[in-house]
Amino acid sequence: MKRFLKVEDIGDLNAAVKEALSLKQNPYAHQHLGKNKTIVLIFFNSSLRTRLSTQKAAMNLGMNVMVLDINKDGWKLESELGVVMDGDKPEHIREAVPVIGQYCDIIGVRSFAQFENKEDDYSEKILNQFIELSGKPVISLESATRHPLQSFADLITIEEHKTKARPKVVLTWAPHPRALPQAVPNSFVEWMKNADVEFVVTHPKGYELAPEFMEGVTVEYDQKKAFEGADFIYAKNWASYTEYGQILSKDTSWTVDEAHMAWTNNAKFMHCLPVRRNMIVTDGVIESPNSIVIQEAANRVFSAQTVIKRMLESI
Amino acid sequence: MKRFLKVEDIGDLNAAVKEALSLKQNPYAHQHLGKNKTIVLIFFNSSLRTRLSTQKAAMNLGMNVMVLDINKDGWKLESELGVVMDGDKPEHIREAVPVIGQYCDIIGVRSFAQFENKEDDYSEKILNQFIELSGKPVISLESATRHPLQSFADLITIEEHKTKARPKVVLTWAPHPRALPQAVPNSFVEWMKNADVEFVVTHPKGYELAPEFMEGVTVEYDQKKAFEGADFIYAKNWASYTEYGQILSKDTSWTVDEAHMAWTNNAKFMHCLPVRRNMIVTDGVIESPNSIVIQEAANRVFSAQTVIKRMLESI
Amino acid sequence: MKRFLKVEDIGDLNAAVKEALSLKQNPYAHQHLGKNKTIVLIFFNSSLRTRLSTQKAAMNLGMNVMVLDINKDGWKLESELGVVMDGDKPEHIREAVPVIGQYCDIIGVRSFAQFENKEDDYSEKILNQFIELSGKPVISLESATRHPLQSFADLITIEEHKTKARPKVVLTWAPHPRALPQAVPNSFVEWMKNADVEFVVTHPKGYELAPEFMEGVTVEYDQKKAFEGADFIYAKNWASYTEYGQILSKDTSWTVDEAHMAWTNNAKFMHCLPVRRNMIVTDGVIESPNSIVIQEAANRVFSAQTVIKRMLESI
Repeated sequence: MKRFLKVEDIGDLNAAVKEALSLKQNPYAHQHLGKNKTIVLIFFNSSLRTRLSTQKAAMNLGMNVMVLDINKDGWKLESELGVVMDGDKPEHIREAVPVIGQYCDIIGVRSFAQFENKEDDYSEKILNQFIELSGKPVISLESATRHPLQSFADLITIEEHKTKARPKVVLTWAPHPRALPQAVPNSFVEWMKNADVEFVVTHPKGYELAPEFMEGVTVEYDQKKAFEGADFIYAKNWASYTEYGQILSKDTSWTVDEAHMAWTNNAKFMHCLPVRRNMIVTDGVIESPNSIVIQEAANRVFSAQTVIKRMLESI
Repeated sequence: MKRFLKVEDIGDLNAAVKEALSLKQNPYAHQHLGKNKTIVLIFFNSSLRTRLSTQKAAMNLGMNVMVLDINKDGWKLESELGVVMDGDKPEHIREAVPVIGQYCDIIGVRSFAQFENKEDDYSEKILNQFIELSGKPVISLESATRHPLQSFADLITIEEHKTKARPKVVLTWAPHPRALPQAVPNSFVEWMKNADVEFVVTHPKGYELAPEFMEGVTVEYDQKKAFEGADFIYAKNWASYTEYGQILSKDTSWTVDEAHMAWTNNAKFMHCLPVRRNMIVTDGVIESPNSIVIQEAANRVFSAQTVIKRMLESI
Repeated sequence: MKRFLKVEDIGDLNAAVKEALSLKQNPYAHQHLGKNKTIVLIFFNSSLRTRLSTQKAAMNLGMNVMVLDINKDGWKLESELGVVMDGDKPEHIREAVPVIGQYCDIIGVRSFAQFENKEDDYSEKILNQFIELSGKPVISLESATRHPLQSFADLITIEEHKTKARPKVVLTWAPHPRALPQAVPNSFVEWMKNADVEFVVTHPKGYELAPEFMEGVTVEYDQKKAFEGADFIYAKNWASYTEYGQILSKDTSWTVDEAHMAWTNNAKFMHCLPVRRNMIVTDGVIESPNSIVIQEAANRVFSAQTVIKRMLESI
């Protein structure tokens, strides 16, 4: 396994979830794989869950871990060719990335959408330069368009908590004060399309996700109809794709409260975290017994560990 | 041992000091305890000694260590319920803390007094939420009202350097340009009250520490009288408790210089560090052979290691 | 080996390079040396290569590593005696350094030239206080006047890529938008003078390096003449030594492009990185097969590992 950027990279989802749950039972059983192997985690953006859970996953496998905050510990990086570098960027990504590749066996990279230019974000310029130039397996720790470690952990969590073979899973938009990337919902759509679930996406008009993700996915603009019969409610805010990076609504009638949850089939509540309480979801819902956000976060270790283990096996 | 916040948590002080000195002799003898165990150190405030010494203690015990600077590496955290989170805090402590608890076996937390509100600080809101919500043993790396790893290291240092069974220990206020929390003096008082020492506190009027710490403790407002016969001088600045967080005096006649030390019984000089030279203590005193501030800092490893070892044993 | 600050500290260069290349073949063969040993890496200035490569080297040897960013994770440090510390520096280096020494077995320090005062920089005040006060072996991770781990890696790289017994090595100044320290060129001069190479330095008038480094070294002000017959071109910018810290020229006729490289004996191109493209060197040259900057960066692990190994052997 040479890269983990999207759902296709993990292969059969049932096998992947099974492997993750097996690692959850025996997290320290594969430490021979990581001996004298090093993972470098590069953060262009800040992180709590991803930083700690990926570090933990790598340590569970016996690896050494180095964390680097680019733009803070290190340098700002130029990524264009032909630039006379007389400004604030002292290093080119075409040197920085292969150098980092010399110091490790696996690289994890977090680089969010910048919302300056849709084409730049959706072409995954930063991530692709790591793949092209590092010479090492690359794990996305959330890129401009996807957050696959999160979606994999979401799927593991659904598998653990489902009470029927084919549960109904609803991704619902919810309001937020800031413009947030589409990485988490894009990725969740991608994974749910490939999972054995009934999947519905609901959001106000104008919040349609990118067509390349949504092909064949059911969209229900009426949030109540979407919630009916749901076994899992997955809430998330995102900014508009069509009016790229814009906030079109802060309509708090979309906030997931007890009344919304009453429309469902006693659904579990999920969110990738961090979550803005009383914007995305009320205190009451997120603290209810049906909220599984902490279990979901806990599974971030095992989605990461499955991916890293497969990479170690292929080195 | 499920928490280490105050002197009561360590139990018998003689036994604790003995165990620490034994670990100092054989720091690597208990690495089986920490194998595949992880400690997360959370810093809401910056740190040099605590960060390095606690990390070292955990590594001596064979643990994995992850360090997280909240407000910098991570996010600002909301701690109130019922808040519509549409401001600058993207995450609630009621999610962040249980999530961190999923990624480790022991949590260390540093969270200083904010000096905005005495009741908030003295109720230890942040630390108590870690205890309530993390599901894991919690070590204070200095809280709003106490710094128990420091006081434990101080006690070890006194035990190593005392030349009589029951030495006289004096805690003296000294001037400082900034308003400093009462955590170190509160904690030192709490530990000395429980130790086999003659204990006196001296400070200008208006600098009385919180009554719940000072019950039964001798206060001598005349610094010279307090110093007479002292075997250990423990200097520290703190801001006023009664006029909460205020600087009432920068009187440099309280600075510990050679003349002050001449009043004592050839006392050792102690300070938790960092120390403002020529405000708290003169260059001459802190560089004298009677200064044991470096030995005191070195013992931070073994106070931390004793606490972490006991927690590992109880997991 | 108690310190590594300059070329004299490593002893015989041929033996050192041979040891480094042997470690490159078997990086994990000496992990018994580092067991239960800790290195602390202190950065007063930011770092990518040095941080990651030194950490990797220490982990290859089985050590524990702690990284501390002073001025950021920790505190600003006072370094003068007699100062009444009532300003923005809460700690004196005469406490901080011996305390850090208590928590580790080896210390690495990065502290750049400040360009405020030539005498201060060239007296290596910060580094020398670590040597004087820490009580532990000290490795320069780039000081005000030298970058010996870089120069050692450069020498290893030349040894690997040379095609004749005594290659011609040219250090050339090149333009840059900011005032850069002389540490890398000083150090490179120092190592090349002691290596079995024909060595020439070329730069515009006014960019003469400090006399104590340049004694006996050939300077050729005509860049073309210097490049003729060169087997290795080592490009680097530096600010003026005589007009200390000033930028006297940004003359891009000194930028190393294909035409410059055509003057050489099919020379390899070297640079310590980070490099400003199209200021120091063109995209074309740095991406050409003759560019060995990535291999050079990779050797940073093995220069560091050789030094740390020798220090561990002498503890």
